[in-house]
Amino acid sequence: MSYLFCLLLLLFSSLFVHSNAQSKPNIVILFADDLGYGDLEVYGHPTSSTPNINQLAENGLRFTQFYSASPVCSPSRAALLTGRYQTRSGIWPGVFVPDDAGGLPLNETTFAEVLKQEGYKTAMVGKWHLGVGKDSKYLPTKQGFDHYFGIPYSHDMCPCLKCFYPGDKCFNDCDLIYTGCPLYNNTTIIDQPVDLLKLIERYVSKATDWIQSNAKSGDPFLLYFAFQHTHHPQFAGEKFRNSTLRGTFGDSLAELDWAVGEVMNQLRKSGVLENTFIFLTSDNGPSLRNQNRGGNAGLLKCGKGTTYEGGQRVPAIAYWTGKITPGRTTELASTLDLLPTISKITGASLPKAVIDGVDMSPILFGGVKGLRENFYYYFTEAQPKYGVYAVRNRQFKAHYYTEGQINSDPQNHDPDCRPSAKRTFHNPPLLFDLLQDPSEQYNLNNLTQYQAVITQLNGLKKAFEAGMVWGISQITKDHDHSVEPCCKPGCTPFPNCCQCHEKYHSHYFESKP
Amino acid sequence: MSYLFCLLLLLFSSLFVHSNAQSKPNIVILFADDLGYGDLEVYGHPTSSTPNINQLAENGLRFTQFYSASPVCSPSRAALLTGRYQTRSGIWPGVFVPDDAGGLPLNETTFAEVLKQEGYKTAMVGKWHLGVGKDSKYLPTKQGFDHYFGIPYSHDMCPCLKCFYPGDKCFNDCDLIYTGCPLYNNTTIIDQPVDLLKLIERYVSKATDWIQSNAKSGDPFLLYFAFQHTHHPQFAGEKFRNSTLRGTFGDSLAELDWAVGEVMNQLRKSGVLENTFIFLTSDNGPSLRNQNRGGNAGLLKCGKGTTYEGGQRVPAIAYWTGKITPGRTTELASTLDLLPTISKITGASLPKAVIDGVDMSPILFGGVKGLRENFYYYFTEAQPKYGVYAVRNRQFKAHYYTEGQINSDPQNHDPDCRPSAKRTFHNPPLLFDLLQDPSEQYNLNNLTQYQAVITQLNGLKKAFEAGMVWGISQITKDHDHSVEPCCKPGCTPFPNCCQCHEKYHSHYFESKP
Repeated sequence: MSYLFCLLLLLFSSLFVHSNAQSKPNIVILFADDLGYGDLEVYGHPTSSTPNINQLAENGLRFTQFYSASPVCSPSRAALLTGRYQTRSGIWPGVFVPDDAGGLPLNETTFAEVLKQEGYKTAMVGKWHLGVGKDSKYLPTKQGFDHYFGIPYSHDMCPCLKCFYPGDKCFNDCDLIYTGCPLYNNTTIIDQPVDLLKLIERYVSKATDWIQSNAKSGDPFLLYFAFQHTHHPQFAGEKFRNSTLRGTFGDSLAELDWAVGEVMNQLRKSGVLENTFIFLTSDNGPSLRNQNRGGNAGLLKCGKGTTYEGGQRVPAIAYWTGKITPGRTTELASTLDLLPTISKITGASLPKAVIDGVDMSPILFGGVKGLRENFYYYFTEAQPKYGVYAVRNRQFKAHYYTEGQINSDPQNHDPDCRPSAKRTFHNPPLLFDLLQDPSEQYNLNNLTQYQAVITQLNGLKKAFEAGMVWGISQITKDHDHSVEPCCKPGCTPFPNCCQCHEKYHSHYFESKP
Repeated sequence: MSYLFCLLLLLFSSLFVHSNAQSKPNIVILFADDLGYGDLEVYGHPTSSTPNINQLAENGLRFTQFYSASPVCSPSRAALLTGRYQTRSGIWPGVFVPDDAGGLPLNETTFAEVLKQEGYKTAMVGKWHLGVGKDSKYLPTKQGFDHYFGIPYSHDMCPCLKCFYPGDKCFNDCDLIYTGCPLYNNTTIIDQPVDLLKLIERYVSKATDWIQSNAKSGDPFLLYFAFQHTHHPQFAGEKFRNSTLRGTFGDSLAELDWAVGEVMNQLRKSGVLENTFIFLTSDNGPSLRNQNRGGNAGLLKCGKGTTYEGGQRVPAIAYWTGKITPGRTTELASTLDLLPTISKITGASLPKAVIDGVDMSPILFGGVKGLRENFYYYFTEAQPKYGVYAVRNRQFKAHYYTEGQINSDPQNHDPDCRPSAKRTFHNPPLLFDLLQDPSEQYNLNNLTQYQAVITQLNGLKKAFEAGMVWGISQITKDHDHSVEPCCKPGCTPFPNCCQCHEKYHSHYFESKP
């Protein structure tokens, strides 16, 4: 009798724990690379093919005024993970390269750390780009992720030889000076140089196996899936080569889309889809310098690297069956807002630090006005002496500085986007109404009726900059070959000797081999 | 007994006739004015609000490679109605103005005439722009339409005084030299100048009353609804003033969208929606010279007036419940193809004339490759000595001439679009891959692998032009004040004396008062 009682008690308590755990929603962040505002079918691209993202959009909430916190990679990711402008965490100017000694400071709190405290299982798959550092000190497992599986930076920062099935060359040389692209399992390189043609399959296997395992155990989880796609050079495996009308970019995007579909299918199959908040967005605008092989900013001006809209306004789709009403929102939001939103959704406390993001819940669940009224734009090469280049308040954007950038194409049809367009100070600032003029074509700064708007924007800029404490730059730290990822430390001739090819692992996220 | 028998016979035969008539599908063409490729929500505009067109797109087939036959109004409409390039019918160069003596030649066969032969009831509501002529000889009722209700040209070709509720001025002066905007009922002016703020209500009433009446009688019908919207100056009544985030253009587009919704509702309410083929498109690209108050070409180059993609590639949605599978198509098609498609759908014979259009049925009903492989672009000011400016074959487009145009904005950020970009001959032609490079940014004509493509395009151009017989220009005919629409012929002081204001008619399309 007491045996039966104990059994029932155990069963009951396990049910209770299980149900308690299940009440915390899972979080899945799908983060594309250099995917521009105009690249997806649902944002108007005429020849992209993205059936899975179409589904996500059709059943989710699509943003049209959503900003990455930076027009380039590393700072954008720092802001996404911390909810803080990259300037605070020292992720300026520019981006990390493989021999950079710095990284996202360990005292920064990421959304993974926020959720760890709430009992979440956390994993990251894909591109990190916030430093590797000596003894892998800056990798994701040091920032709240239980597991990491991926290349820790852009795949053009290592020699890339094959980009398309069955062995087509890549369309540029990538950075030949560095070690081959390393695939990390946690802090261990398991494959170097990794085969790009099989990479997404492995990413997807990792992600879906892990979802399945958490669904089984009933643990709430955070998956941060940061694609190498659609950063140049474009690549894709057998299934997606020549699968679209849009050439190599289209094929690469189709492979990304497939991965999104696989994640969604796994969530569905594992029975956790209804308890999962999913957010898909991009780190910055399209790399126009790669022309047809870069992305597309749609109707927005310029692209990656600039503080024009094409540099920072990105596609964004929020999805949560039964909780988020499908549709489109014109409310202002940013990658900065993910951390506060995730905190709100999961009941977690915000980190004890200045947070620049705001909770997006009113937009997501209430269909009402969002809390964000302003957005501040820092250039790629952000520097304290220039501060913010542009400020948006509601529909108005003021450009205090404009500057073209190499990633927006030296041959861009719009001369403002080209790197030959040097930094220019504007006083009064150029002024645009972004709701009526999303392409930033019609400057309003000489019209009497907008003088009050300019005054207000000037005030916002002044106040914001007064509150900005710039973290010590992590990117200008020394370059050091010894921190460069190599699976055979100390080998010669460096960097070519860094070659290791382990078999595929059937059990992902296992402990270090 | 014999009485009862007769009654049954009558009933039976009426049922039979009714059912036979119903087997012919109704045709509704919704034709927007200067609506650009990037203007609709479903084509990626961030702040337009078009819930009804969204519905149409969600349940219809959306084209991404659909061309109006001309980058301006009159020639585009000539081609739509006849399935023939405007050059054949003499609708070149440019557009008709109110005192033009010419019009679409009466020996041209319109789709209305095609369907009249099949027993269709036919009506047109809205903007004609194919000439009025002496004694209204060129109005729609002379070209196969049983009924006409509308302004026979653009509303900026008459003095426009009030554009927004409750009485806001228009944002430009329109053409003050002409008579006030005339509202025709068939060939009679019933209101002059017409009140733009109430115009769409009246258009919609006409259209929906007429749908209802045909549905009751069981007659198959063709409705050609050609909106004044979204040609500049923008206008909208009480309900839509300040209804959107996109300013006056957005409000005007919202009013158009409302009208689309009303037509759809009426088709549904009248029980004929399932037997109706609906096609929504635009006459040409956006009027960029009107900046925020003009439309948007999205990611396409330039706009109205030019042979760049922004001038002629337009939104297009085909809808037929249960017959057309919803989705997106990347197949090539054109306004030229409407007449052959309508003929095919209704079983009508094609006119005995050279038809440039092809039947779109394979795209619409088979989801397979379309019959159109080529498209030829004529400039606004088309002239025999220059011929076609550009040719598209599959994904490739060759520009033999390029030229900017006033409607694409003298201050366009892209110098190629401005009117200061004079006609330039290119040999070899500029070459673009439109599937990979929709924005026509990356000229391929100097690459060896494309020389065969250029040769093929040269051959297509030559063959096409060899088969082109230019009709006598109707647009360069004399200007004649006596043909200018005036409800009080011969009155003084002309043109201001042309003022008549009849009461609203509750029964539309009645015979001449």
